[in-house]
Amino acid sequence: MYEPMLAGLRILDFSRALAGPTCTRMLVEMGAEIIKVEAAPGGDLTRHTAKFRDNSDRSFYYVQQNRGKKSVCLDVRKPEGLALAHELVKHVDVVVENFKPGVIAEMGMGFEALKAIKPDIILCSISALGQSGPLAGKPGYDYIAQAYAGVTSMIGDPDQPPYVPLLGLGDVSTGVHGALAILAALRHRDRTGRGQHLDVGLLDVYYHCHEMNVITHSGTQGRVSPQRAGRHLTYMCPAGVFRASGGRDITIMAFLHHWKDLCAAMQRPDLAADPTLDSDPKRLERRAEVIAIIETWLQGFADPAEAIAILEAHNVPCAPVLSVAESMVEPHLVQRGTIRTIDDPLAGSFEVPGFPLRFSDFPEPLPLTAPTLGQHNDDVLTGLLGKSEEDVARLRAAGVLLERNV
Amino acid sequence: MYEPMLAGLRILDFSRALAGPTCTRMLVEMGAEIIKVEAAPGGDLTRHTAKFRDNSDRSFYYVQQNRGKKSVCLDVRKPEGLALAHELVKHVDVVVENFKPGVIAEMGMGFEALKAIKPDIILCSISALGQSGPLAGKPGYDYIAQAYAGVTSMIGDPDQPPYVPLLGLGDVSTGVHGALAILAALRHRDRTGRGQHLDVGLLDVYYHCHEMNVITHSGTQGRVSPQRAGRHLTYMCPAGVFRASGGRDITIMAFLHHWKDLCAAMQRPDLAADPTLDSDPKRLERRAEVIAIIETWLQGFADPAEAIAILEAHNVPCAPVLSVAESMVEPHLVQRGTIRTIDDPLAGSFEVPGFPLRFSDFPEPLPLTAPTLGQHNDDVLTGLLGKSEEDVARLRAAGVLLERNV
Repeated sequence: MYEPMLAGLRILDFSRALAGPTCTRMLVEMGAEIIKVEAAPGGDLTRHTAKFRDNSDRSFYYVQQNRGKKSVCLDVRKPEGLALAHELVKHVDVVVENFKPGVIAEMGMGFEALKAIKPDIILCSISALGQSGPLAGKPGYDYIAQAYAGVTSMIGDPDQPPYVPLLGLGDVSTGVHGALAILAALRHRDRTGRGQHLDVGLLDVYYHCHEMNVITHSGTQGRVSPQRAGRHLTYMCPAGVFRASGGRDITIMAFLHHWKDLCAAMQRPDLAADPTLDSDPKRLERRAEVIAIIETWLQGFADPAEAIAILEAHNVPCAPVLSVAESMVEPHLVQRGTIRTIDDPLAGSFEVPGFPLRFSDFPEPLPLTAPTLGQHNDDVLTGLLGKSEEDVARLRAAGVLLERNV
Repeated sequence: MYEPMLAGLRILDFSRALAGPTCTRMLVEMGAEIIKVEAAPGGDLTRHTAKFRDNSDRSFYYVQQNRGKKSVCLDVRKPEGLALAHELVKHVDVVVENFKPGVIAEMGMGFEALKAIKPDIILCSISALGQSGPLAGKPGYDYIAQAYAGVTSMIGDPDQPPYVPLLGLGDVSTGVHGALAILAALRHRDRTGRGQHLDVGLLDVYYHCHEMNVITHSGTQGRVSPQRAGRHLTYMCPAGVFRASGGRDITIMAFLHHWKDLCAAMQRPDLAADPTLDSDPKRLERRAEVIAIIETWLQGFADPAEAIAILEAHNVPCAPVLSVAESMVEPHLVQRGTIRTIDDPLAGSFEVPGFPLRFSDFPEPLPLTAPTLGQHNDDVLTGLLGKSEEDVARLRAAGVLLERNV
């Protein structure tokens, strides 16, 4: 076997919660060394959530996001704590943070301060609305950026308030964007010797997901301005979520050439031959009628799986709308490792999503364990910074270093 | 100035539509050279959509996704076309494709075939449900993967069918995941000399966005199984979309310590002092009541902007739910470059989303122009492959190469 993909990279990670830890989660799963600095006394905020086992104070959320990272728990408000953080910077390639913009500089760890310590340092700052612009200072979360990005407005029915997806689509994607920016900046550093400050915001990440909406408004000079429009696409048809029998739903994408396949699946050669339905624009004009035809057909099956089998036999792109519980036992996800079981020394074994990137040279995920709070204080201070055992004991006694078995 | 971030990287791109072209769009914006192979005679499918100017056959969609790439238009079903594609492989670092799994191998361009041509080649295969597992062969689109991932099921009201967000959240994020996998594999190749086959699927990308849902089901052994639950989070409160006056909506995230700030903004010290509302679990038990209090307060302002100003003055995380049209003129997005105007030689000037990664050494985006179909046939064949003008003319006459000014 070979060394892991990103062997030799070392990253100092001040981030907490979701977007920042996702960034370093992506990197640690590929073999980078992540030194996660957690603020004494509580550590990462997420250590206090999702404690699902009565006999354990261990957070499932923390474990999921931080497997394989090293935890150093420091009080950086104490001068000695800050000095240790500065010393660590000398030994790493990259620093990651997701404080509110400006906070890392106030802490004495802004890009200029870091450059003075290590001239080729890369600082990746992750935030909701970005490091620049009039709203940069606002407190932000995923849904705040989603609202400003015009994304929330595209979910739901036009005559009702919109919905938010109940999962961290923006936070997680932003973490991945941050990891991409870091590897690009490292490639540049390796060639030029120059470090950089990276600015990755959820707002920008959400915004470039508008593959049609911005250009449609711009291209039509506002004559067509995208709005939420229910459960179906507005520029191709049929494409969306259809109600089947038993309160179940099926996603069907039967635009373009798929329409004829759908008509065959429904045994409706009359529809396939109908010249008033032979293109997406024509079907869009009769969208409600097209949807009703499909839903009536679907509801004729007592078991929605029968309808899906027929659609699949005709190569119509379709999928059952699975609940989270169903997704966790769907054979495709299980066999592919999209869902996986991990073993945690404190919380026991449980399921988490798989690593989303697959590399032919590395078919098996690395065996990673989430750290307890401050678990690597000793290792990192003596091993990397060359402190003595006595130094470490003194810092611990002074409340600069902290450890807890959580 | 320095050479662009990814100068020196050359990528052969067979992908079309959205996820694959997003992957190479990320790389070209950082200075990689992308040779986009488009299938004769039509080219990328998206060339046929979003032609918003009456006097032009130019697709706004294509332009947005393909600025800066070189277009080679080839008929790879002809042996000479396939031979040219194989020759190109010798000169690139990476090949990107997003055909249905198996198709690239049938075309004679699978990983083994590519390795025989260039031993350290990296092939990035992007798909909906991945290259492995029982469902890998299904035709797939964003919403198909979203349905299998349990994501669609988390959007909407529990007693109604779910909604799909009307934009390409999964496709775009998957392209970014692909770009990350490529840069990681390049780092590995540079160190070890080994190429790799990368498998990046929308399903896996969507799945690891479940920051709480999978572990909640798993951790509670199914006692709590996440379901869609309307416009508000189910594990913190208040957090979601609130209806203000005039049919406008405001996203407010006022859980944890933000609750007291919200109470102050609403001038409700009684709520802040209420011991039955002093934690998220307690507020969740009275969620409907909490939401009603906030919405009643919001609806007391004729102009929702007044409510937002008061919330901001009290540091409550909040945002107006902007339409796409509003987002395009919001000063923060404009000043930050989250929305930008591009000039296209055929379509004229129009707005597209900005590049979501910011690098301090490269404050200005590269000046990129989308190619016409086959625009770089000559350049690439004579410049890179060393063909003569006569060879090119012969291949053009034989229908192996094609150019059109679209």
